[in-house]
Amino acid sequence: MDDHLYLSRRQSIMLLEFDGSRTRELLVMANPTVTGVPAVPAALERARETSLPVLRRAIATLHPDLAAVAGYHCGLTDQHGRPVTAGGGGKMLRPALVLLSARTTETPARTSPSEAVVAGAGAVQLVHEFSLLHDDIMDRDRTRRGRATAWTVYGTDTALLAGDVVMALAISMLGDHPPAAAALAEAVVCLCAGQAEDLALGTRSAVTVADWERMATGKTGALIAASCRVGALLGGGDDGIATALSDIGEHLGLAFQAVDDWLGIWGNSAATGKPVGADIAARKRSLPITATLSTPGAASQTLAAILDTPGNLTVGDIAEAIAALDHANAGEFTRHHAQRHTTHIRTALGALDLPPEVRRDWDDLVTFLTTRTT
Amino acid sequence: MDDHLYLSRRQSIMLLEFDGSRTRELLVMANPTVTGVPAVPAALERARETSLPVLRRAIATLHPDLAAVAGYHCGLTDQHGRPVTAGGGGKMLRPALVLLSARTTETPARTSPSEAVVAGAGAVQLVHEFSLLHDDIMDRDRTRRGRATAWTVYGTDTALLAGDVVMALAISMLGDHPPAAAALAEAVVCLCAGQAEDLALGTRSAVTVADWERMATGKTGALIAASCRVGALLGGGDDGIATALSDIGEHLGLAFQAVDDWLGIWGNSAATGKPVGADIAARKRSLPITATLSTPGAASQTLAAILDTPGNLTVGDIAEAIAALDHANAGEFTRHHAQRHTTHIRTALGALDLPPEVRRDWDDLVTFLTTRTT
Repeated sequence: MDDHLYLSRRQSIMLLEFDGSRTRELLVMANPTVTGVPAVPAALERARETSLPVLRRAIATLHPDLAAVAGYHCGLTDQHGRPVTAGGGGKMLRPALVLLSARTTETPARTSPSEAVVAGAGAVQLVHEFSLLHDDIMDRDRTRRGRATAWTVYGTDTALLAGDVVMALAISMLGDHPPAAAALAEAVVCLCAGQAEDLALGTRSAVTVADWERMATGKTGALIAASCRVGALLGGGDDGIATALSDIGEHLGLAFQAVDDWLGIWGNSAATGKPVGADIAARKRSLPITATLSTPGAASQTLAAILDTPGNLTVGDIAEAIAALDHANAGEFTRHHAQRHTTHIRTALGALDLPPEVRRDWDDLVTFLTTRTT
Repeated sequence: MDDHLYLSRRQSIMLLEFDGSRTRELLVMANPTVTGVPAVPAALERARETSLPVLRRAIATLHPDLAAVAGYHCGLTDQHGRPVTAGGGGKMLRPALVLLSARTTETPARTSPSEAVVAGAGAVQLVHEFSLLHDDIMDRDRTRRGRATAWTVYGTDTALLAGDVVMALAISMLGDHPPAAAALAEAVVCLCAGQAEDLALGTRSAVTVADWERMATGKTGALIAASCRVGALLGGGDDGIATALSDIGEHLGLAFQAVDDWLGIWGNSAATGKPVGADIAARKRSLPITATLSTPGAASQTLAAILDTPGNLTVGDIAEAIAALDHANAGEFTRHHAQRHTTHIRTALGALDLPPEVRRDWDDLVTFLTTRTT
């Protein structure tokens, strides 16, 4: 049966079925040889508690049709507008960085974040949600965070418009904090440039790691860097600390994206919410794929040939592509690339004079983001 | 030959052909009984001269793929990226209102606009261009200002992304002028609400003039009002004058939209750049259509029946719809509606203490916008 396939990956073992157009998981189980999935750090938990009410309040001010899409997309409501009680939505990494960067700069230390910092946390998350709403339309992705994407539920037009309004809302939430608002608007410009780079790389085989880095700097680095800058500014930090934290954020964004790209091929599909081999099926120029394609040799040729195959890729194609990536040590390369950025971050954090509990939160966050499995 | 039709409208006489899915103009000639097309006022000419270089410079800072789309869409370049020398692009109404509102508030009067005001003029035009880029995608419009729409040339994804980046760029251009930037971001939120209202009205027959007014206040009024506010603030005006001018802008937006809706049915297609009967073919809930549908009677029933016809409307359907609108005096109603807003504007301008040359520019602009034929 050439349309069924067993895959044994780092985190999981799965049986796949291919129905002619997409793969379906028949069975996914945790790989019993793997233990020690890192716990979600406190900074992300706190960010979720702080941000969800802000998102809820901000979205409630929108036109009801757009509020419905935004609320659904952000995981606050289901598609009938009913509140989702279990914590839906994203990881809240960007709000966590706003809160943590604010705590890094605030003197004296506050016991709870200021109203401005809370607004900043909500605003960066909304910009992230805007980009996901539009990316899902552009990439024709049908699932996101384990749910149907907004455009598949509400139609492309309304999802597009909801993305627009969510972005403008985010910037206007920082109206009383001009430098933070300006940083956010500039991040959106970079984010769009990164997405343009992504579209331009498209299905080209002649790609380099530098292309990937430029794309990821815009697509992921810019908003994560801006989250740190916004938090630092709203916490009362000067330009010096805002720039230092923004630099940390940019490297964190690149490490995060490298890990994301690793998970997009070797991750546990049940945990990440992405179909197995999705990045290969989508012929995405992710870091392992880019690194393999840009290194002359048999693996590069095999991978390029598979990715150039017209029509949908079969489960066999995807398995062969993963074998080529494994042969080229692309997983290790990708992990190492993330590690290089992580080392830069650790050094930069080491140079800052931080209260012990703030340092611990930074360390935990960096560790989690670079060792995460979802 | 029931697929050919002569239409004699106010500004033109035309022979139409219907190919089964869309109307094509075989012949359009000026209606010789009409004379005296109003001249373009100086304020719009100046706004074009001032704004085009700002747009060019701002767009040049974008990712090249997005700059190409934005430049094409704004009428600065053709689809091969070659500069368009003859004045392409829009009417530059919004930049004109920034410049004029700044002149209304500046003391002492300046001989040329400040750098901030020039940036404001460019920024409001870019927000307008963002909304057109996205509206054209949502409405599947294939022509705009007599050219192929950006999404038909560059694809939906790139056009969508270009819209995003142009909006963020516009707001970040006003980074040094926080209240103006905030006004612009808030206008985008309202603009999206108006577009959501437009999508919601969709093809409903149960619509009222109040529905139209709410939609137009968001879709057209908000950005025109914001243009006046941005100009007033950048000219150094206080909140009082900024709010007075913003109110004038909102009414101007509604008068402008009413005239636009009139032109969408009775305008000279060769001059407006819109296909004849486009607003009917698109079943758009424009003011004459909304007014007719909401007034019980034979015209309303005929129009509703035509607009409810499944599939593409024929030239015969469109002609019959125009006859129903004419029967309901919808053209006169629409003109009168515009006139009511114009009267409000004239009264509000009358209450302001304006230098004679500034008053003349306001008067000329209002006259042109409410008597325009394109």
